[in-house]
Amino acid sequence: MLPGGRLLVCGVGLIGGSVAAGLREQGAETIIGVDTDRQALAAAQRAGLIDATGWPDDLGPTDLVLIAVPTLTVASVLAELWDGERGVLAGGAVVTDVASVKQSVLDAALASCGRMPANLVPGHPIAGSERSGVAAARADLFRGHRVILTPVEQTAAAAIDRVRAAWEALGAEVCTMPVADHDRILAMTSHLPHLLAFALVDTLGRVPEHEAVFRFAAGGFRDFTRIASSDPVMWSDIFAANAEAVGGILDALERELDELRALLDAGDREGLRSIFTRAKALRDTHVIGASSRD
Amino acid sequence: MLPGGRLLVCGVGLIGGSVAAGLREQGAETIIGVDTDRQALAAAQRAGLIDATGWPDDLGPTDLVLIAVPTLTVASVLAELWDGERGVLAGGAVVTDVASVKQSVLDAALASCGRMPANLVPGHPIAGSERSGVAAARADLFRGHRVILTPVEQTAAAAIDRVRAAWEALGAEVCTMPVADHDRILAMTSHLPHLLAFALVDTLGRVPEHEAVFRFAAGGFRDFTRIASSDPVMWSDIFAANAEAVGGILDALERELDELRALLDAGDREGLRSIFTRAKALRDTHVIGASSRD
Repeated sequence: MLPGGRLLVCGVGLIGGSVAAGLREQGAETIIGVDTDRQALAAAQRAGLIDATGWPDDLGPTDLVLIAVPTLTVASVLAELWDGERGVLAGGAVVTDVASVKQSVLDAALASCGRMPANLVPGHPIAGSERSGVAAARADLFRGHRVILTPVEQTAAAAIDRVRAAWEALGAEVCTMPVADHDRILAMTSHLPHLLAFALVDTLGRVPEHEAVFRFAAGGFRDFTRIASSDPVMWSDIFAANAEAVGGILDALERELDELRALLDAGDREGLRSIFTRAKALRDTHVIGASSRD
Repeated sequence: MLPGGRLLVCGVGLIGGSVAAGLREQGAETIIGVDTDRQALAAAQRAGLIDATGWPDDLGPTDLVLIAVPTLTVASVLAELWDGERGVLAGGAVVTDVASVKQSVLDAALASCGRMPANLVPGHPIAGSERSGVAAARADLFRGHRVILTPVEQTAAAAIDRVRAAWEALGAEVCTMPVADHDRILAMTSHLPHLLAFALVDTLGRVPEHEAVFRFAAGGFRDFTRIASSDPVMWSDIFAANAEAVGGILDALERELDELRALLDAGDREGLRSIFTRAKALRDTHVIGASSRD
């Protein structure tokens, strides 16, 4: 993919660096990086992930722009790429992003460009790590993972095809869905679990003897809280951008916790066992079965 | 350890089978298994983990009894071992258990024996797996893991030493603490995370399109919900036995979720970021640092 083409990576972190590394292997001619973090840019250059830095004046027909910045920074990058109809986005370059919330990208496009450009393809790779930063970048980060694209009516089919082909070149499986479906599903499978992990760790941190408490945490706790080591900036953006969908599934979870609390208080082992049995069956069926993919 | 001695394993599942496998390597002469599940006993015999089945009439001075059954089944096993002062527990055999709640073991001893026998050493290995059953047993399951013993005033020092030596022979690090401390700490680091994992998976299972939802769950979700694949019987017993301590930390978590909800509703990125930053620092300091141990 990107044969002879240039890749512009806006935001050289875990995701931007991993796309750069992967598309380098797939024959990208030149990779240009921009980032407000000069150390990240320098590290990416030292690692051979990018060849040049700075906003390019023009991009050609086989080029691709990847926006890989925290969700609420997408607007400012789009503004830079649009640049009052003088920028590369206004000029027709194919642009995609990787934000974990998609409605906010549509909102950002309206705010920054005045409309949804046909060559902007909102996207989201369902891959990542609690590690962040370009030092954690890996060319195979997306292999076997899903990428969700959420094009809208105005989005050009050729632009979707270009973005799809780039992700497929990295070994990802690409699907499309409506923006609202994406944001609701991700609130359930990703955003709420992160909120719970942050909440649990912070709750235990407020216990006076928390050091002793953490000392007796074992593998189950380590796995359960792994996502609480995720980047706080990225995640505060995601929650601010998807507050309504997260609030909806948090309501449902709190109702479930109320139900469990009532069973606990009543000492109702059968009631607890019934819910645990249902949860175990769901996970064993739907999550274990999918493990080779994720 | 257990040189020339016999081991009686009451409950031949993941934990009982793993202790049997480990102490076999350490020179246990004979391993006897009892279990209400005949298939588990047969599997353990086929795997060479146990040599004989059935309650022994007597046990000698170098023997050890391990109770590895669901928490609320400990009482009936203790009653069998006590047998109106005619059983091996009444006869002085050193007995330990592995239940995840310790107060309920003390209660069970009072109910089954009329007192806390000096040769009964309550214990809990902080190791395990979402897998259960003897087929998952491994001789090295406890290597590098902590085991908490919660002896009481009446417990004989020699009995504690025997149990400690057995766990150390399996590569575990043994410590002691008061019963109440154990039950409170485990409510925080193990029981509440399990409740949240079961609750989240069951909540998502109630969403009409839950199959589509689970399809887009990635590695973070898989790790976060791994413990929701745990044994429902074991866990309903644990929650029934430790309801008060679990309820206390669940209260604290729900207050934290209320706080996060208010920040979400207000779109307060700074407030969210501040909590996430604190949680990430706590986990990176206290949990990552402990990862080689667990």
